[in-house]
Amino acid sequence: MQGGYSFEDLKPGMTASYGRTVTEADIAAFAGVSGDFNPVHVNEEFAANTMFEGRIAHGMLTGAFISTVVGTKLPGEGCIYVSQNLRFRAPVRIGDTVTVNVEVTALDPKRRFVTLATTASVDGKPVVTGEAVMMVPVRG
Amino acid sequence: MQGGYSFEDLKPGMTASYGRTVTEADIAAFAGVSGDFNPVHVNEEFAANTMFEGRIAHGMLTGAFISTVVGTKLPGEGCIYVSQNLRFRAPVRIGDTVTVNVEVTALDPKRRFVTLATTASVDGKPVVTGEAVMMVPVRG
Amino acid sequence: MQGGYSFEDLKPGMTASYGRTVTEADIAAFAGVSGDFNPVHVNEEFAANTMFEGRIAHGMLTGAFISTVVGTKLPGEGCIYVSQNLRFRAPVRIGDTVTVNVEVTALDPKRRFVTLATTASVDGKPVVTGEAVMMVPVRG
Amino acid sequence: MQGGYSFEDLKPGMTASYGRTVTEADIAAFAGVSGDFNPVHVNEEFAANTMFEGRIAHGMLTGAFISTVVGTKLPGEGCIYVSQNLRFRAPVRIGDTVTVNVEVTALDPKRRFVTLATTASVDGKPVVTGEAVMMVPVRG
Repeated sequence: MQGGYSFEDLKPGMTASYGRTVTEADIAAFAGVSGDFNPVHVNEEFAANTMFEGRIAHGMLTGAFISTVVGTKLPGEGCIYVSQNLRFRAPVRIGDTVTVNVEVTALDPKRRFVTLATTASVDGKPVVTGEAVMMVPVRG
Repeated sequence: MQGGYSFEDLKPGMTASYGRTVTEADIAAFAGVSGDFNPVHVNEEFAANTMFEGRIAHGMLTGAFISTVVGTKLPGEGCIYVSQNLRFRAPVRIGDTVTVNVEVTALDPKRRFVTLATTASVDGKPVVTGEAVMMVPVRG
Repeated sequence: MQGGYSFEDLKPGMTASYGRTVTEADIAAFAGVSGDFNPVHVNEEFAANTMFEGRIAHGMLTGAFISTVVGTKLPGEGCIYVSQNLRFRAPVRIGDTVTVNVEVTALDPKRRFVTLATTASVDGKPVVTGEAVMMVPVRG
Repeated sequence: MQGGYSFEDLKPGMTASYGRTVTEADIAAFAGVSGDFNPVHVNEEFAANTMFEGRIAHGMLTGAFISTVVGTKLPGEGCIYVSQNLRFRAPVRIGDTVTVNVEVTALDPKRRFVTLATTASVDGKPVVTGEAVMMVPVRG
Protein backbone atom coordinates (compact mmCIF):
# COMPACT_ATOMS: atom_id res chain seq x y z
CA MET A 1 0.00 0.00 0.00
CA GLN A 2 1.46 3.35 -1.01
CA GLY A 3 -1.02 5.71 0.58
CA GLY A 4 -4.61 5.61 -0.71
CA TYR A 5 -7.60 5.44 1.63
CA SER A 6 -9.53 2.26 2.16
CA PHE A 7 -13.29 2.50 1.92
CA GLU A 8 -13.68 2.09 5.68
CA ASP A 9 -11.53 5.17 6.30
CA LEU A 10 -13.65 7.55 4.26
CA LYS A 11 -16.18 9.89 5.87
CA PRO A 12 -18.44 12.57 4.39
CA GLY A 13 -16.83 15.96 4.73
CA MET A 14 -13.25 14.79 4.22
CA THR A 15 -11.40 17.12 1.85
CA ALA A 16 -8.23 17.38 -0.18
CA SER A 17 -6.82 19.98 -2.54
CA TYR A 18 -4.22 20.52 -5.24
CA GLY A 19 -3.02 23.77 -6.76
CA ARG A 20 -1.22 24.55 -9.99
CA THR A 21 -0.16 27.71 -11.70
CA VAL A 22 -0.97 27.12 -15.35
CA THR A 23 1.95 27.96 -17.61
CA GLU A 24 2.29 28.31 -21.35
CA ALA A 25 4.33 25.10 -21.21
CA ASP A 26 1.42 23.24 -19.61
CA ILE A 27 -0.87 24.31 -22.45
CA ALA A 28 1.73 23.27 -25.02
CA ALA A 29 2.14 19.91 -23.29
CA PHE A 30 -1.60 19.31 -23.05
CA ALA A 31 -2.08 20.18 -26.72
CA GLY A 32 0.76 17.82 -27.51
CA VAL A 33 -0.60 14.83 -25.65
CA SER A 34 -4.28 15.34 -26.52
CA GLY A 35 -3.87 16.53 -30.10
CA ASP A 36 -6.12 19.52 -29.36
CA PHE A 37 -4.50 22.42 -31.22
CA ASN A 38 -7.68 24.50 -31.26
CA PRO A 39 -6.33 28.01 -31.95
CA VAL A 40 -8.02 29.43 -28.87
CA HIS A 41 -5.36 27.50 -26.94
CA VAL A 42 -2.26 27.81 -29.14
CA ASN A 43 -2.65 30.85 -31.41
CA GLU A 44 -2.48 34.18 -29.62
CA GLU A 45 -3.48 36.21 -32.69
CA PHE A 46 -6.62 34.15 -33.16
CA ALA A 47 -7.42 34.02 -29.46
CA ALA A 48 -7.01 37.79 -29.02
CA ASN A 49 -9.99 38.24 -31.31
CA THR A 50 -12.28 35.92 -29.37
CA MET A 51 -14.45 36.81 -26.39
CA PHE A 52 -11.58 35.56 -24.20
CA GLU A 53 -9.18 38.18 -25.60
CA GLY A 54 -6.22 35.79 -25.39
CA ARG A 55 -5.22 32.17 -25.15
CA ILE A 56 -7.00 30.03 -22.57
CA ALA A 57 -6.12 26.63 -21.15
CA HIS A 58 -7.91 23.51 -22.33
CA GLY A 59 -10.91 22.88 -20.08
CA MET A 60 -9.84 19.29 -19.85
CA LEU A 61 -6.48 20.33 -18.40
CA THR A 62 -8.40 21.44 -15.34
CA GLY A 63 -10.29 18.15 -15.63
CA ALA A 64 -6.91 16.43 -15.48
CA PHE A 65 -6.02 18.33 -12.29
CA ILE A 66 -9.27 17.07 -10.73
CA SER A 67 -8.36 13.55 -11.70
CA THR A 68 -4.98 14.08 -10.05
CA VAL A 69 -6.54 14.91 -6.68
CA VAL A 70 -8.92 11.97 -6.61
CA GLY A 71 -6.31 9.59 -7.99
CA THR A 72 -3.44 10.58 -5.72
CA LYS A 73 -4.90 12.22 -2.58
CA LEU A 74 -8.53 11.45 -1.80
CA PRO A 75 -9.34 8.60 -2.06
CA GLY A 76 -5.88 8.19 -3.66
CA GLU A 77 -3.94 5.19 -4.91
CA GLY A 78 -5.86 2.03 -5.46
CA CYS A 79 -9.17 3.67 -6.33
CA ILE A 80 -10.86 3.26 -9.70
CA TYR A 81 -12.53 6.09 -11.58
CA VAL A 82 -16.22 5.32 -12.16
CA SER A 83 -17.42 8.67 -13.48
CA GLN A 84 -16.72 12.38 -13.60
CA ASN A 85 -19.04 15.23 -14.50
CA LEU A 86 -17.51 18.54 -15.49
CA ARG A 87 -19.23 21.90 -15.85
CA PHE A 88 -16.97 24.54 -17.40
CA ARG A 89 -17.87 27.90 -15.84
CA ALA A 90 -15.04 30.29 -16.65
CA PRO A 91 -11.81 30.27 -18.64
CA VAL A 92 -8.38 29.60 -17.16
CA ARG A 93 -5.59 31.83 -18.49
CA ILE A 94 -1.83 31.53 -18.55
CA GLY A 95 -0.55 32.49 -15.11
CA ASP A 96 -3.76 31.61 -13.26
CA THR A 97 -3.36 29.40 -10.23
CA VAL A 98 -6.02 26.70 -10.30
CA THR A 99 -6.91 25.19 -6.94
CA VAL A 100 -8.91 21.99 -6.97
CA ASN A 101 -10.87 21.13 -3.84
CA VAL A 102 -12.62 17.79 -3.46
CA GLU A 103 -14.96 16.76 -0.67
CA VAL A 104 -16.54 13.42 0.12
CA THR A 105 -20.32 13.82 -0.15
CA ALA A 106 -21.68 10.27 -0.20
CA LEU A 107 -20.64 6.68 0.43
CA ASP A 108 -22.23 3.57 -1.04
CA PRO A 109 -20.88 0.60 1.00
CA LYS A 110 -22.55 -2.01 -1.18
CA ARG A 111 -20.61 -1.02 -4.28
CA ARG A 112 -17.73 0.61 -2.36
CA PHE A 113 -18.42 3.83 -4.27
CA VAL A 114 -17.49 7.23 -2.89
CA THR A 115 -18.92 10.43 -4.36
CA LEU A 116 -16.91 13.65 -4.19
CA ALA A 117 -17.82 17.22 -5.04
CA THR A 118 -14.99 18.50 -7.24
CA THR A 119 -14.44 22.23 -7.59
CA ALA A 120 -11.63 24.01 -9.39
CA SER A 121 -11.26 27.70 -8.64
CA VAL A 122 -9.13 30.66 -9.65
CA ASP A 123 -8.96 33.54 -7.16
CA GLY A 124 -11.79 31.90 -5.23
CA LYS A 125 -14.09 31.86 -8.25
CA PRO A 126 -15.20 28.44 -9.58
CA VAL A 127 -13.93 27.67 -13.07
CA VAL A 128 -14.89 23.98 -13.26
CA THR A 129 -17.37 22.24 -10.99
CA GLY A 130 -18.64 18.70 -10.93
CA GLU A 131 -18.78 15.37 -9.23
CA ALA A 132 -16.53 12.33 -9.17
CA VAL A 133 -17.50 8.78 -8.30
CA MET A 134 -14.68 6.40 -7.39
CA MET A 135 -14.64 2.73 -6.44
CA VAL A 136 -12.40 2.23 -3.42
CA PRO A 137 -10.77 -0.98 -2.12
CA VAL A 138 -11.72 -2.32 1.30
CA ARG A 139 -9.06 -2.82 3.93
CA GLY A 140 -6.64 -5.70 3.65
CA MET B 1 -12.97 31.57 -39.33
CA GLN B 2 -10.56 28.65 -39.50
CA GLY B 3 -12.87 25.69 -39.88
CA GLY B 4 -15.38 25.08 -37.07
CA TYR B 5 -19.09 24.62 -37.73
CA SER B 6 -21.57 27.42 -37.19
CA PHE B 7 -24.66 26.58 -35.20
CA GLU B 8 -26.85 26.78 -38.34
CA ASP B 9 -24.75 24.07 -40.01
CA LEU B 10 -25.25 21.47 -37.29
CA LYS B 11 -27.84 18.70 -37.64
CA PRO B 12 -28.68 15.76 -35.38
CA GLY B 13 -26.85 12.67 -36.57
CA MET B 14 -23.69 14.42 -37.73
CA THR B 15 -20.60 12.53 -36.60
CA ALA B 16 -16.84 12.87 -36.31
CA SER B 17 -14.10 10.63 -35.01
CA TYR B 18 -10.47 10.62 -33.88
CA GLY B 19 -8.21 7.68 -33.20
CA ARG B 20 -4.99 7.32 -31.23
CA THR B 21 -2.82 4.40 -30.34
CA VAL B 22 -1.94 5.00 -26.69
CA THR B 23 1.79 4.75 -26.12
CA GLU B 24 3.89 4.62 -22.98
CA ALA B 25 5.08 8.10 -23.96
CA ASP B 26 1.51 9.41 -23.90
CA ILE B 27 1.01 8.12 -20.37
CA ALA B 28 4.30 9.68 -19.26
CA ALA B 29 3.33 12.98 -20.89
CA PHE B 30 -0.12 12.97 -19.32
CA ALA B 31 1.31 12.17 -15.89
CA GLY B 32 3.75 15.03 -16.35
CA VAL B 33 1.22 17.67 -17.29
CA SER B 34 -1.51 16.59 -14.87
CA GLY B 35 0.66 15.60 -11.92
CA ASP B 36 -1.22 12.30 -11.65
CA PHE B 37 1.56 9.83 -10.85
CA ASN B 38 -0.81 7.24 -9.44
CA PRO B 39 1.31 4.05 -9.58
CA VAL B 40 -1.35 2.22 -11.55
CA HIS B 41 -0.30 4.48 -14.44
CA VAL B 42 3.46 4.84 -13.97
CA ASN B 43 4.73 1.97 -11.80
CA GLU B 44 4.69 -1.35 -13.58
CA GLU B 45 5.63 -3.34 -10.45
CA PHE B 46 2.71 -1.86 -8.53
CA ALA B 47 0.31 -2.11 -11.46
CA ALA B 48 1.15 -5.75 -12.14
CA ASN B 49 -0.30 -6.61 -8.74
CA THR B 50 -3.60 -4.84 -9.30
CA MET B 51 -6.72 -6.25 -10.92
CA PHE B 52 -5.50 -4.64 -14.17
CA GLU B 53 -2.30 -6.72 -14.15
CA GLY B 54 -0.26 -3.90 -15.65
CA ARG B 55 -0.17 -0.18 -16.20
CA ILE B 56 -3.29 1.50 -17.61
CA ALA B 57 -3.77 4.91 -19.15
CA HIS B 58 -5.30 7.75 -17.16
CA GLY B 59 -9.06 7.80 -17.71
CA MET B 60 -8.78 11.52 -18.26
CA LEU B 61 -6.37 10.97 -21.17
CA THR B 62 -9.29 9.44 -23.00
CA GLY B 63 -11.33 12.38 -21.75
CA ALA B 64 -8.74 14.62 -23.39
CA PHE B 65 -9.15 12.77 -26.69
CA ILE B 66 -12.91 13.40 -26.48
CA SER B 67 -12.22 17.08 -25.92
CA THR B 68 -9.97 17.05 -28.99
CA VAL B 69 -12.76 15.82 -31.26
CA VAL B 70 -15.33 18.34 -30.09
CA GLY B 71 -12.78 21.18 -29.99
CA THR B 72 -11.19 20.57 -33.37
CA LYS B 73 -13.63 18.58 -35.53
CA LEU B 74 -17.30 18.70 -34.48
CA PRO B 75 -18.34 21.39 -33.77
CA GLY B 76 -14.67 22.43 -33.98
CA GLU B 77 -12.88 25.75 -33.68
CA GLY B 78 -14.81 28.58 -32.14
CA CYS B 79 -17.03 26.45 -29.88
CA ILE B 80 -17.01 26.73 -26.10
CA TYR B 81 -17.13 23.75 -23.75
CA VAL B 82 -20.19 23.93 -21.49
CA SER B 83 -20.08 20.49 -19.90
CA GLN B 84 -18.79 16.94 -20.25
CA ASN B 85 -19.94 13.80 -18.49
CA LEU B 86 -17.59 10.83 -18.48
CA ARG B 87 -18.38 7.25 -17.48
CA PHE B 88 -15.26 5.07 -17.29
CA ARG B 89 -16.21 1.55 -18.36
CA ALA B 90 -13.02 -0.33 -19.06
CA PRO B 91 -9.28 0.29 -18.81
CA VAL B 92 -7.11 1.44 -21.72
CA ARG B 93 -3.75 -0.27 -21.91
CA ILE B 94 -0.49 0.64 -23.64
CA GLY B 95 -0.83 -0.25 -27.30
CA ASP B 96 -4.62 0.03 -27.40
CA THR B 97 -6.02 2.13 -30.21
CA VAL B 98 -8.73 4.40 -28.78
CA THR B 99 -11.31 5.62 -31.27
CA VAL B 100 -13.55 8.47 -30.17
CA ASN B 101 -16.84 8.88 -31.99
CA VAL B 102 -19.07 11.87 -31.38
CA GLU B 103 -22.59 12.39 -32.70
CA VAL B 104 -24.88 15.40 -32.52
CA THR B 105 -27.98 14.39 -30.55
CA ALA B 106 -29.72 17.67 -29.71
CA LEU B 107 -29.69 21.35 -30.61
CA ASP B 108 -30.90 24.23 -28.43
CA PRO B 109 -31.18 27.27 -30.73
CA LYS B 110 -32.04 29.68 -27.92
CA ARG B 111 -28.74 29.15 -26.13
CA ARG B 112 -26.84 27.94 -29.25
CA PHE B 113 -26.03 24.73 -27.36
CA VAL B 114 -25.31 21.46 -29.15
CA THR B 115 -25.34 18.13 -27.32
CA LEU B 116 -23.15 15.29 -28.54
CA ALA B 117 -22.97 11.65 -27.51
CA THR B 118 -19.28 10.95 -26.94
CA THR B 119 -18.04 7.35 -27.04
CA ALA B 120 -14.46 6.12 -26.84
CA SER B 121 -13.92 2.51 -27.81
CA VAL B 122 -11.13 -0.04 -28.05
CA ASP B 123 -11.68 -2.92 -30.44
CA GLY B 124 -15.31 -1.85 -30.76
CA LYS B 125 -15.89 -2.04 -27.00
CA PRO B 126 -16.78 1.19 -25.15
CA VAL B 127 -14.16 2.31 -22.65
CA VAL B 128 -15.49 5.79 -21.89
CA THR B 129 -19.00 7.01 -22.66
CA GLY B 130 -20.69 10.31 -21.98
CA GLU B 131 -22.15 13.50 -23.30
CA ALA B 132 -20.71 16.86 -24.26
CA VAL B 133 -22.55 20.17 -24.45
CA MET B 134 -20.90 22.93 -26.47
CA MET B 135 -21.91 26.52 -27.19
CA VAL B 136 -21.44 27.24 -30.88
CA PRO B 137 -21.14 30.59 -32.67
CA VAL B 138 -23.80 31.63 -35.18
CA ARG B 139 -22.81 32.49 -38.71
CA GLY B 140 -21.35 35.86 -39.60
CA MET C 1 -11.55 7.68 -44.79
CA GLN C 2 -11.12 10.20 -42.02
CA GLY C 3 -11.10 13.50 -43.87
CA GLY C 4 -8.32 14.06 -46.42
CA TYR C 5 -9.01 15.21 -49.95
CA SER C 6 -9.04 12.81 -52.87
CA PHE C 7 -7.05 13.82 -55.92
CA GLU C 8 -10.26 14.48 -57.89
CA ASP C 9 -11.39 17.03 -55.30
CA LEU C 10 -8.30 19.23 -55.57
CA LYS C 11 -8.29 22.41 -57.65
CA PRO C 12 -5.63 25.07 -58.17
CA GLY C 13 -6.23 27.96 -55.81
CA MET C 14 -7.53 25.90 -52.90
CA THR C 15 -6.00 27.07 -49.62
CA ALA C 16 -5.62 26.07 -45.99
CA SER C 17 -3.87 27.60 -43.02
CA TYR C 18 -2.60 26.84 -39.51
CA GLY C 19 -1.36 29.23 -36.87
CA ARG C 20 0.76 28.74 -33.77
CA THR C 21 2.20 31.08 -31.23
CA VAL C 22 5.73 29.78 -30.69
CA THR C 23 6.48 29.33 -27.01
CA GLU C 24 9.69 28.63 -25.11
CA ALA C 25 8.21 25.19 -24.42
CA ASP C 26 7.89 24.49 -28.15
CA ILE C 27 11.57 25.27 -28.67
CA ALA C 28 12.54 23.03 -25.74
CA ALA C 29 10.36 20.23 -27.11
CA PHE C 30 11.75 20.57 -30.61
CA ALA C 31 15.33 20.58 -29.30
CA GLY C 32 14.51 17.46 -27.31
CA VAL C 33 13.05 15.47 -30.15
CA SER C 34 15.52 16.59 -32.83
CA GLY C 35 18.66 16.72 -30.74
CA ASP C 36 19.40 20.21 -32.09
CA PHE C 37 20.68 22.05 -29.03
CA ASN C 38 22.43 24.74 -31.04
CA PRO C 39 22.90 27.51 -28.46
CA VAL C 40 21.16 30.05 -30.66
CA HIS C 41 17.96 28.13 -29.77
CA VAL C 42 18.51 27.08 -26.16
CA ASN C 43 21.17 29.34 -24.62
CA GLU C 44 19.96 32.87 -24.03
CA GLU C 45 23.41 34.16 -22.98
CA PHE C 46 24.95 32.90 -26.21
CA ALA C 47 22.01 33.98 -28.35
CA ALA C 48 21.96 37.49 -26.91
CA ASN C 49 25.41 38.05 -28.44
CA THR C 50 24.44 36.95 -31.94
CA MET C 51 22.94 39.09 -34.69
CA PHE C 52 19.53 37.82 -33.52
CA GLU C 53 20.02 39.32 -30.03
CA GLY C 54 18.13 36.47 -28.38
CA ARG C 55 16.99 32.90 -28.83
CA ILE C 56 15.22 32.01 -32.06
CA ALA C 57 13.11 29.00 -32.97
CA HIS C 58 14.55 26.17 -35.05
CA GLY C 59 13.84 26.83 -38.72
CA MET C 60 12.72 23.25 -39.00
CA LEU C 61 10.03 23.84 -36.35
CA THR C 62 8.35 26.10 -38.85
CA GLY C 63 9.03 23.37 -41.40
CA ALA C 64 7.14 21.02 -39.10
CA PHE C 65 4.17 23.40 -39.01
CA ILE C 66 4.13 23.37 -42.82
CA SER C 67 4.11 19.59 -42.75
CA THR C 68 1.17 19.73 -40.33
CA VAL C 69 -0.98 21.74 -42.74
CA VAL C 70 -0.32 19.52 -45.74
CA GLY C 71 -0.59 16.32 -43.69
CA THR C 72 -3.77 17.19 -41.81
CA LYS C 73 -5.65 19.87 -43.77
CA LEU C 74 -4.79 20.18 -47.47
CA PRO C 75 -4.56 17.63 -48.96
CA GLY C 76 -4.79 16.04 -45.49
CA GLU C 77 -4.97 12.46 -44.26
CA GLY C 78 -3.99 9.78 -46.71
CA CYS C 79 -1.51 11.87 -48.71
CA ILE C 80 2.18 11.01 -48.97
CA TYR C 81 4.97 13.56 -48.78
CA VAL C 82 7.06 13.54 -51.96
CA SER C 83 9.19 16.62 -51.41
CA GLN C 84 9.46 19.91 -49.58
CA ASN C 85 11.69 22.90 -50.33
CA LEU C 86 12.27 25.40 -47.57
CA ARG C 87 13.81 28.86 -47.85
CA PHE C 88 14.47 30.43 -44.45
CA ARG C 89 13.96 34.19 -44.78
CA ALA C 90 13.70 35.59 -41.28
CA PRO C 91 13.99 34.34 -37.71
CA VAL C 92 11.03 33.33 -35.56
CA ARG C 93 11.24 34.48 -31.96
CA ILE C 94 9.53 33.32 -28.79
CA GLY C 95 6.04 34.81 -28.75
CA ASP C 96 5.75 35.18 -32.51
CA THR C 97 2.58 33.78 -34.04
CA VAL C 98 3.52 31.82 -37.15
CA THR C 99 0.75 31.44 -39.72
CA VAL C 100 1.29 28.87 -42.44
CA ASN C 101 -0.69 29.28 -45.64
CA VAL C 102 -0.67 26.64 -48.35
CA GLU C 103 -2.19 26.93 -51.81
CA VAL C 104 -2.60 24.34 -54.55
CA THR C 105 -0.61 25.53 -57.56
CA ALA C 106 -0.38 22.50 -59.85
CA LEU C 107 -1.87 19.04 -60.35
CA ASP C 108 -0.23 16.09 -62.13
CA PRO C 109 -3.01 13.53 -62.75
CA LYS C 110 -0.65 10.89 -64.13
CA ARG C 111 1.32 10.59 -60.91
CA ARG C 112 -1.47 11.96 -58.66
CA PHE C 113 0.93 14.64 -57.47
CA VAL C 114 -0.29 17.99 -56.15
CA THR C 115 2.06 20.94 -55.77
CA LEU C 116 1.41 23.55 -53.09
CA ALA C 117 3.04 26.89 -52.41
CA THR C 118 3.85 26.90 -48.70
CA THR C 119 4.39 30.20 -46.91
CA ALA C 120 4.92 30.77 -43.21
CA SER C 121 4.56 34.36 -42.04
CA VAL C 122 4.86 36.41 -38.88
CA ASP C 123 2.96 39.70 -38.82
CA GLY C 124 2.34 39.29 -42.54
CA LYS C 125 6.04 39.00 -43.33
CA PRO C 126 7.30 35.70 -44.82
CA VAL C 127 9.69 33.79 -42.58
CA VAL C 128 9.81 30.50 -44.49
CA THR C 129 8.71 30.00 -48.08
CA GLY C 130 8.78 26.97 -50.31
CA GLU C 131 6.92 24.31 -52.16
CA ALA C 132 5.46 20.95 -51.19
CA VAL C 133 4.67 18.05 -53.50
CA MET C 134 2.28 15.41 -52.20
CA MET C 135 0.95 12.19 -53.71
CA VAL C 136 -2.79 11.98 -53.11
CA PRO C 137 -5.10 8.95 -53.23
CA VAL C 138 -7.83 8.77 -55.86
CA ARG C 139 -11.46 8.31 -54.82
CA GLY C 140 -12.89 4.91 -54.07
CA MET D 1 32.96 30.26 -29.81
CA GLN D 2 31.50 26.92 -28.79
CA GLY D 3 32.51 24.71 -31.68
CA GLY D 4 31.15 25.61 -35.12
CA TYR D 5 33.36 25.90 -38.18
CA SER D 6 34.34 29.24 -39.62
CA PHE D 7 33.91 29.65 -43.34
CA GLU D 8 37.70 29.53 -43.90
CA ASP D 9 37.89 26.07 -42.31
CA LEU D 10 35.40 24.42 -44.63
CA LYS D 11 36.51 22.32 -47.61
CA PRO D 12 34.53 20.32 -50.14
CA GLY D 13 34.34 16.68 -49.10
CA MET D 14 34.17 17.32 -45.35
CA THR D 15 31.54 15.11 -43.75
CA ALA D 16 29.60 14.64 -40.52
CA SER D 17 26.91 12.25 -39.40
CA TYR D 18 24.25 11.70 -36.73
CA GLY D 19 22.27 8.58 -35.98
CA ARG D 20 19.02 8.04 -34.11
CA THR D 21 16.86 5.04 -33.43
CA VAL D 22 13.32 6.33 -33.91
CA THR D 23 11.06 5.39 -31.00
CA GLU D 24 7.34 5.56 -30.48
CA ALA D 25 8.09 8.32 -27.98
CA ASP D 26 9.85 10.37 -30.67
CA ILE D 27 6.80 10.14 -32.90
CA ALA D 28 4.53 11.13 -30.01
CA ALA D 29 6.80 14.06 -29.20
CA PHE D 30 6.99 15.21 -32.81
CA ALA D 31 3.21 15.02 -33.18
CA GLY D 32 2.94 16.98 -29.97
CA VAL D 33 5.20 19.83 -30.98
CA SER D 34 4.11 20.08 -34.61
CA GLY D 35 0.40 19.40 -34.15
CA ASP D 36 0.55 16.76 -36.88
CA PHE D 37 -1.69 13.94 -35.61
CA ASN D 38 -2.20 12.45 -39.06
CA PRO D 39 -3.40 8.91 -38.24
CA VAL D 40 -0.65 7.33 -40.33
CA HIS D 41 1.66 8.47 -37.53
CA VAL D 42 -0.43 8.00 -34.38
CA ASN D 43 -3.18 5.45 -35.10
CA GLU D 44 -1.94 1.90 -35.56
CA GLU D 45 -5.35 0.56 -36.65
CA PHE D 46 -5.60 3.16 -39.40
CA ALA D 47 -1.97 2.84 -40.41
CA ALA D 48 -2.13 -0.96 -40.62
CA ASN D 49 -4.59 -0.54 -43.49
CA THR D 50 -2.38 1.78 -45.51
CA MET D 51 0.33 0.81 -47.98
CA PHE D 52 2.81 1.22 -45.11
CA GLU D 53 1.10 -1.51 -43.04
CA GLY D 54 1.78 0.29 -39.76
CA ARG D 55 2.67 3.61 -38.25
CA ILE D 56 5.50 5.59 -39.83
CA ALA D 57 7.48 8.54 -38.52
CA HIS D 58 6.75 12.06 -39.72
CA GLY D 59 8.96 12.81 -42.73
CA MET D 60 9.81 16.11 -41.14
CA LEU D 61 11.21 14.32 -38.09
CA THR D 62 13.97 13.08 -40.34
CA GLY D 63 14.15 16.62 -41.68
CA ALA D 64 14.72 17.73 -38.10
CA PHE D 65 17.57 15.24 -37.72
CA ILE D 66 19.19 16.74 -40.83
CA SER D 67 18.86 20.19 -39.33
CA THR D 68 20.54 18.86 -36.19
CA VAL D 69 23.66 17.79 -38.07
CA VAL D 70 24.12 21.02 -39.96
CA GLY D 71 23.23 23.14 -36.92
CA THR D 72 25.43 21.36 -34.42
CA LYS D 73 28.20 19.50 -36.31
CA LEU D 74 28.95 20.73 -39.82
CA PRO D 75 29.14 23.67 -40.15
CA GLY D 76 27.75 23.75 -36.58
CA GLU D 77 27.11 26.56 -34.12
CA GLY D 78 27.01 30.05 -35.50
CA CYS D 79 25.76 29.12 -38.96
CA ILE D 80 22.43 30.32 -40.33
CA TYR D 81 20.04 28.13 -42.30
CA VAL D 82 19.47 29.56 -45.77
CA SER D 83 17.56 26.70 -47.39
CA GLN D 84 16.86 22.99 -47.26
CA ASN D 85 15.43 20.73 -49.94
CA LEU D 86 13.96 17.42 -48.86
CA ARG D 87 13.00 14.47 -51.06
CA PHE D 88 11.11 11.77 -49.14
CA ARG D 89 12.06 8.40 -50.65
CA ALA D 90 10.97 5.74 -48.18
CA PRO D 91 9.15 5.55 -44.87
CA VAL D 92 10.85 5.40 -41.48
CA ARG D 93 9.28 2.98 -39.00
CA ILE D 94 9.43 2.66 -35.23
CA GLY D 95 12.70 0.97 -34.35
CA ASP D 96 14.53 2.09 -37.48
CA THR D 97 17.91 3.69 -36.94
CA VAL D 98 18.18 6.76 -39.14
CA THR D 99 21.69 7.87 -39.99
CA VAL D 100 22.11 11.33 -41.48
CA ASN D 101 25.27 12.01 -43.47
CA VAL D 102 26.13 15.47 -44.71
CA GLU D 103 28.96 16.43 -47.03
CA VAL D 104 30.24 19.82 -48.12
CA THR D 105 29.77 20.09 -51.89
CA ALA D 106 30.25 23.78 -52.68
CA LEU D 107 31.49 27.00 -51.13
CA ASP D 108 30.49 30.54 -52.12
CA PRO D 109 33.05 32.87 -50.49
CA LYS D 110 31.27 36.03 -51.56
CA ARG D 111 28.12 35.24 -49.62
CA ARG D 112 29.84 32.88 -47.14
CA PHE D 113 27.41 30.15 -48.20
CA VAL D 114 28.24 26.47 -47.91
CA THR D 115 26.22 23.81 -49.72
CA LEU D 116 25.94 20.32 -48.25
CA ALA D 117 24.47 17.13 -49.65
CA THR D 118 22.21 15.76 -46.91
CA THR D 119 21.26 12.10 -46.92
CA ALA D 120 19.30 10.18 -44.30
CA SER D 121 19.46 6.40 -44.58
CA VAL D 122 18.05 3.32 -42.87
CA ASP D 123 20.05 0.12 -43.31
CA GLY D 124 22.10 1.87 -45.98
CA LYS D 125 19.04 2.76 -48.03
CA PRO D 126 18.24 6.47 -48.52
CA VAL D 127 14.98 7.57 -46.91
CA VAL D 128 15.36 11.34 -47.28
CA THR D 129 17.80 13.09 -49.58
CA GLY D 130 18.39 16.75 -50.28
CA GLU D 131 20.62 19.74 -50.03
CA ALA D 132 21.24 22.33 -47.35
CA VAL D 133 22.66 25.80 -47.81
CA MET D 134 24.05 27.53 -44.73
CA MET D 135 25.59 30.96 -44.18
CA VAL D 136 28.74 30.60 -42.08
CA PRO D 137 30.61 33.26 -40.07
CA VAL D 138 34.17 34.19 -41.02
CA ARG D 139 36.89 33.86 -38.46
CA GLY D 140 36.92 36.48 -35.72
